[in-house]
Amino acid sequence: MPVTPEQQAEIDALREAPRETLRTVSEGMERHLYVPHQVLDHGFVRVVDYMGDDAAICQAARVSYGRGTKSVQNDEGLIRYLMRHWHSTPFEMCEVKFHVKLPVFVARQWIRHRTANVNEYSARYSILDREFYIPAPEHLAAQSGVNNQGRGEVLQGEEAQRVLNLLREDAMRSYDHYEAMLAQDDNQQGLARELARMNLPANIYTQWYWKVDLHNLLHFLRLRADAHAQYEIRAYADAMCRIAADWVPAAFAAFRDYRMDAVSLSAQAVAALKRRLAGEVVTQENSGMAAREWREFQEVWG
Amino acid sequence: MPVTPEQQAEIDALREAPRETLRTVSEGMERHLYVPHQVLDHGFVRVVDYMGDDAAICQAARVSYGRGTKSVQNDEGLIRYLMRHWHSTPFEMCEVKFHVKLPVFVARQWIRHRTANVNEYSARYSILDREFYIPAPEHLAAQSGVNNQGRGEVLQGEEAQRVLNLLREDAMRSYDHYEAMLAQDDNQQGLARELARMNLPANIYTQWYWKVDLHNLLHFLRLRADAHAQYEIRAYADAMCRIAADWVPAAFAAFRDYRMDAVSLSAQAVAALKRRLAGEVVTQENSGMAAREWREFQEVWG
Amino acid sequence: MPVTPEQQAEIDALREAPRETLRTVSEGMERHLYVPHQVLDHGFVRVVDYMGDDAAICQAARVSYGRGTKSVQNDEGLIRYLMRHWHSTPFEMCEVKFHVKLPVFVARQWIRHRTANVNEYSARYSILDREFYIPAPEHLAAQSGVNNQGRGEVLQGEEAQRVLNLLREDAMRSYDHYEAMLAQDDNQQGLARELARMNLPANIYTQWYWKVDLHNLLHFLRLRADAHAQYEIRAYADAMCRIAADWVPAAFAAFRDYRMDAVSLSAQAVAALKRRLAGEVVTQENSGMAAREWREFQEVWG
Amino acid sequence: MPVTPEQQAEIDALREAPRETLRTVSEGMERHLYVPHQVLDHGFVRVVDYMGDDAAICQAARVSYGRGTKSVQNDEGLIRYLMRHWHSTPFEMCEVKFHVKLPVFVARQWIRHRTANVNEYSARYSILDREFYIPAPEHLAAQSGVNNQGRGEVLQGEEAQRVLNLLREDAMRSYDHYEAMLAQDDNQQGLARELARMNLPANIYTQWYWKVDLHNLLHFLRLRADAHAQYEIRAYADAMCRIAADWVPAAFAAFRDYRMDAVSLSAQAVAALKRRLAGEVVTQENSGMAAREWREFQEVWG
Repeated sequence: MPVTPEQQAEIDALREAPRETLRTVSEGMERHLYVPHQVLDHGFVRVVDYMGDDAAICQAARVSYGRGTKSVQNDEGLIRYLMRHWHSTPFEMCEVKFHVKLPVFVARQWIRHRTANVNEYSARYSILDREFYIPAPEHLAAQSGVNNQGRGEVLQGEEAQRVLNLLREDAMRSYDHYEAMLAQDDNQQGLARELARMNLPANIYTQWYWKVDLHNLLHFLRLRADAHAQYEIRAYADAMCRIAADWVPAAFAAFRDYRMDAVSLSAQAVAALKRRLAGEVVTQENSGMAAREWREFQEVWG
Repeated sequence: MPVTPEQQAEIDALREAPRETLRTVSEGMERHLYVPHQVLDHGFVRVVDYMGDDAAICQAARVSYGRGTKSVQNDEGLIRYLMRHWHSTPFEMCEVKFHVKLPVFVARQWIRHRTANVNEYSARYSILDREFYIPAPEHLAAQSGVNNQGRGEVLQGEEAQRVLNLLREDAMRSYDHYEAMLAQDDNQQGLARELARMNLPANIYTQWYWKVDLHNLLHFLRLRADAHAQYEIRAYADAMCRIAADWVPAAFAAFRDYRMDAVSLSAQAVAALKRRLAGEVVTQENSGMAAREWREFQEVWG
Repeated sequence: MPVTPEQQAEIDALREAPRETLRTVSEGMERHLYVPHQVLDHGFVRVVDYMGDDAAICQAARVSYGRGTKSVQNDEGLIRYLMRHWHSTPFEMCEVKFHVKLPVFVARQWIRHRTANVNEYSARYSILDREFYIPAPEHLAAQSGVNNQGRGEVLQGEEAQRVLNLLREDAMRSYDHYEAMLAQDDNQQGLARELARMNLPANIYTQWYWKVDLHNLLHFLRLRADAHAQYEIRAYADAMCRIAADWVPAAFAAFRDYRMDAVSLSAQAVAALKRRLAGEVVTQENSGMAAREWREFQEVWG
Repeated sequence: MPVTPEQQAEIDALREAPRETLRTVSEGMERHLYVPHQVLDHGFVRVVDYMGDDAAICQAARVSYGRGTKSVQNDEGLIRYLMRHWHSTPFEMCEVKFHVKLPVFVARQWIRHRTANVNEYSARYSILDREFYIPAPEHLAAQSGVNNQGRGEVLQGEEAQRVLNLLREDAMRSYDHYEAMLAQDDNQQGLARELARMNLPANIYTQWYWKVDLHNLLHFLRLRADAHAQYEIRAYADAMCRIAADWVPAAFAAFRDYRMDAVSLSAQAVAALKRRLAGEVVTQENSGMAAREWREFQEVWG
């Protein structure tokens, strides 16, 4: 269970105490505030604070004195224009702060996105909990045969069982020994926390506060909610996509159309499509594309 | 006057429409929201939005599930500890968005602080207003004789009058010609806005939305509210110091004690002070400091 | 003339003194080192230092102990793969430092690219030279009638002459007054440099050292060597494209194919093209695109 | 042994092939190029490339056309002035690229410094080696009794032996199971690499290319070569300090005097020292300092 009763009580207390503010309010986001969305077996992502909404993007783009937005339709058109033409600065005017609980190997991928603020739970200072990510059977995938960096079929039967047993037993044993090394009693002084943690495997859960502006959040989501991302980080990105869609519906719709569901065509691909539209038959040989790029081209265009 | 009646009406409308939120609220900051604080002759700085408060710093430092703060005294102690030991990440968890109207030569200094988000009024797209910074007589300073990058005495009498006349006349004439070049009538097509603007001097006012986290705001204020900063940008920094003190009183007090009013001693200065405490007489010659550093040392320690 | 004989002598001295190094060397870039490439009437861009080459991109992508590159063909394929799939970190492993002389209004656009290092000539500390950008007749464009942020036809005849005269006269007069306010003689103390500079228009030349990694340079070039960028900054970007093509030929070719000459299709545009390929007639009405987006679509696809 | 004979051969090949360049060369740094400096039991840090030297700092500060440096003494004075007054941009004009082999728990601390470029060995794509950090007996420290985030005495006798045995056995067993899960044979398909890695503890070694400018390197070293940093990352920082001292001797000496060996005094500490210099006896009670700050004050000033 990702949240204890005591933690849930703290969250409930926060949700029962609305206050007055003169700031912009996103009703869609207020519904999410503090509520943990479960991800993987013991993880979650939840919104702790936010700044701005769709209107704030337009207000900044127009450098306005007041609310600075016009009709909903006019604002949506502006947001789509900004997104289409890579005018990223107005989207940077919205900010969100998440509290995330996630396995260490996911955290290591996540942190490569540098334009964000992070406070992580410190295993130098505190003792980590006994919580490890163990994949659900349907996510226990074999190594891909064609892509070094990908997954193949789901493991079955005995092999799946063997793997799950190894992951569980190693996690438990490592944690037992972590506690044993830390223990302070007649028998021993106890190893420093900053050293004992090195015995813990990368599927142990950590947590952090992660704060990011909307432009950089969308960049993160484009890469991490993508089919090429590792499933475990994609599960977090998917949850954050749902939250962002409620927070800034117009910006998120534009993001979906111009980024997530968009296709980038190389100079060669543009030429190939134009020739096809003109009725020509284009092959890899006469396309100017290498084999791998041609394969990627065909996946979209047949 | 920095704000027109129409703009003031927009601001008033925003201040009269409080809404409910589940987010952290800083009462001190709510009082500032949208209100322009005049700076220089036609400039201002005003808060357009914010995220977080003193408690949010502690909450992030503790990676908490709920509010995460303890007694006020306990929280203050934590904030002072974090500031003293350069733990900057919890301060990054607060964010503020300003709307600033400022002369272009001030904007050029300001923008050198890169870790912030900016949307500036576009003189490619729109026509700038006829507003120029003309220094008040008491800020019309002579070049410093000892510091290439500083000011000396205030100019007096005829010289002061001559300078003010030149600044005013050149500003007006440049703007007249800016308008003349843009004009579209029977006589002419009108020069492109993106070209015509090049005729405008650096004391013309521009405006922008500027968003920054608290850590980077304090870094900006340390350098720009400092006695060595140019007066014109310091005037903005001073106004922002007053706002920050109302927003996050504990963090700002710690910033004052450990940054603004703090003194950094070089290895040589530490040694010199220890010798003085031991009753020795230290001179520049036996201090290991160069002449200029010794002068800076004496300014603090006599 | 952008460079004085004394400056040219300094540049020549540097080019005549090769030294030994164990670092990676790009022969294409060595030819550019220190040589100013003229841009606009008095500006230039020149390479002052660089780090890395095409091979360094592969070496980093492979986290190698030695040179880490394989055959030229293999390396090129890797670089194209990295570019196509937005793996930006290996491109960040090359770095370049430019010395640029440019009008202030161009500098103000340029500096909005934040992920770079800058040292600008200080007009607080030093006195600026009497050098102003005056557009060549063929770049003296009228305001666009359809795009607020664009240029229309080139101004002709009397209007062109009037504009050029105004720009020249205002520049000269502003500079005369700048000098007059700074002058220190029997008659006056001289205004502080940091104040006097505010009288100078935005077409005065400044200069800076600008250092950036290859990934961020290419991002800058994508936006600033684009047809929608203002001509004056595009002139710099074009010169830098030629330099980059000599420095990292494989990376620049990939950049050209996957960024500069690439086309990004929205979800709606993908659907429209697929329908066209299937023989359907697509109109704006049944495309799901707004008028402006449809116009942009037609510009590429007819 | 941190480097295999094959890797050493690659390194030797690079060091035996000097080339000509027109760039600035730091003789002190050329001696370090490619050579691994051992850190901890299996780690290393080595310079792979660099840009700039002490003179490049002055050249940028002066925005020069040629070398831009004056006498060595004059340049040193400028560098010390820049460092003392927090003028950081000239130091950003030097850049260095390291190849580092380090335990994962050290990498996790290291990556919190965001203003740098990183390419890490990918355990999604490749299989990690069987190399783990096991502390030397003299670094096997107990948890500190007074500082949650610190170390106490070195563990002795049986307890030390128990800890070392646990660390070694768990590392070996985890790696055995990692290999077992990956294995592809008649019996099994083999778990995806991106999943199998989650079984590996945080003392396994990883490696990366890390590129950073001199200003940000010095900031990293100030925090990580400090007595409060965890020993294991300090060992890397110490090695990098020695390299930096050879690369930019003047900048590093200034860094030592004004940062590493400097002391920052709060407003309260300044007041307390002034009273002491005036012969007064200052106690915690009348100092305005909290107990912990007073203790820190006494550690320096007695």
